[in-house]
Amino acid sequence: MNEKKKAVVLVSGGLDSATVLAIAAQQGYALYALSFDYGQRHQSELHAAARVAKQADVREHRCLHIDLGQLGGSALTDTQIAIPTEPAEGIPVTYVPARNTIFLSYGLAWMEVMGASDLFIGVNAVDYSGYPDCRPEFIAAFEHMANLATKTAIEGMPIRIHAPLQHLSKAEIIREGHRLGVNYGLTVSCYAADEQGRACGVCDACRLRRQGFIEAGVADPTHYQVA
Amino acid sequence: MNEKKKAVVLVSGGLDSATVLAIAAQQGYALYALSFDYGQRHQSELHAAARVAKQADVREHRCLHIDLGQLGGSALTDTQIAIPTEPAEGIPVTYVPARNTIFLSYGLAWMEVMGASDLFIGVNAVDYSGYPDCRPEFIAAFEHMANLATKTAIEGMPIRIHAPLQHLSKAEIIREGHRLGVNYGLTVSCYAADEQGRACGVCDACRLRRQGFIEAGVADPTHYQVA
Repeated sequence: MNEKKKAVVLVSGGLDSATVLAIAAQQGYALYALSFDYGQRHQSELHAAARVAKQADVREHRCLHIDLGQLGGSALTDTQIAIPTEPAEGIPVTYVPARNTIFLSYGLAWMEVMGASDLFIGVNAVDYSGYPDCRPEFIAAFEHMANLATKTAIEGMPIRIHAPLQHLSKAEIIREGHRLGVNYGLTVSCYAADEQGRACGVCDACRLRRQGFIEAGVADPTHYQVA
Repeated sequence: MNEKKKAVVLVSGGLDSATVLAIAAQQGYALYALSFDYGQRHQSELHAAARVAKQADVREHRCLHIDLGQLGGSALTDTQIAIPTEPAEGIPVTYVPARNTIFLSYGLAWMEVMGASDLFIGVNAVDYSGYPDCRPEFIAAFEHMANLATKTAIEGMPIRIHAPLQHLSKAEIIREGHRLGVNYGLTVSCYAADEQGRACGVCDACRLRRQGFIEAGVADPTHYQVA
């Protein structure tokens, strides 16, 4: 019997990471899902992450409680900052300082403990325009750093950071996930979802997602609070 | 009045980070100390960190509780793995997976929230031989990544990771700190210190520290459990 290669997949409960799980599974990896309770307002994301990980039949799903809210500085973790409903110039207030750097660093730690060397993250070209830590050059720089940082790499297993959605539009991501059988009804993208995981329909994340389903020509299974 | 430039300094409570605080102060920075409760066995480190930060007159000292013990894989966070008392070949079992990567990432997040762009860490040439994430090439790669990851850098304030002990021996570090008035009696380096912060005298960290004071020709103020 061939032992499958292990991969850590960062799973937020959103549309992108659900697609990444399906892609990693199709590439033959044994899946280890990692989520973060980082003081985000939208706790329904974490329920979605659990549903998505279960559907993808992961070997293990860990959720780490981390202290980003304590540092503040983002509309996603600080209730003093309003969630915007209009597109903004520059870097949006929903940007969480150093978030992907921290998430990838924890992924790296877990990989080292398990002896894995592959890490998947669902950053993509749409986020790219606003969040600096979603850009391809950031992912490449993180991979380079990780190969100098870790025992795994020093001992001969190069670390690879996979960002398979990097160059895809939201519509292309949805089409790919649809082809792979992802149930997007389990996912939550909204920055202001209610406790049942129903989407507000008006925040940045909702607008991108709704538009994506339209462009992909795939029926949108999202549960909205408003029509 | 000239407003001092802010710097985040990672403070463990050990000899090295106490020296780094003194160096950053001498360079004219306003100091923001950051420590981590990461499930390390030696909790006396954190008491030492608080004493050291207070002596250095920092503007603020934060201690973040983070979840490294939950991932396991190191003698410093896993009570199932014994602390070694003899030097080992290769990377020691006291190596904590991706620790410095995670610590620096949190430092980066706090800097972004404050609008700071300078981060100090006390890695040095002695640790270099064993821990991959203490090497100069790792620090350089982290700095490069940080400049792609953050809003601070994108908006025109390049991130600088300062590792002023990088090329110093333990004896040179002690001589420099002694010159700057650091009270090393407040610090704890031992991997197995007791609740009063008294050192075991036999672990790797104790051996390096004891030898450093001898070579520096500085009186050793360490409180040992054994003679």
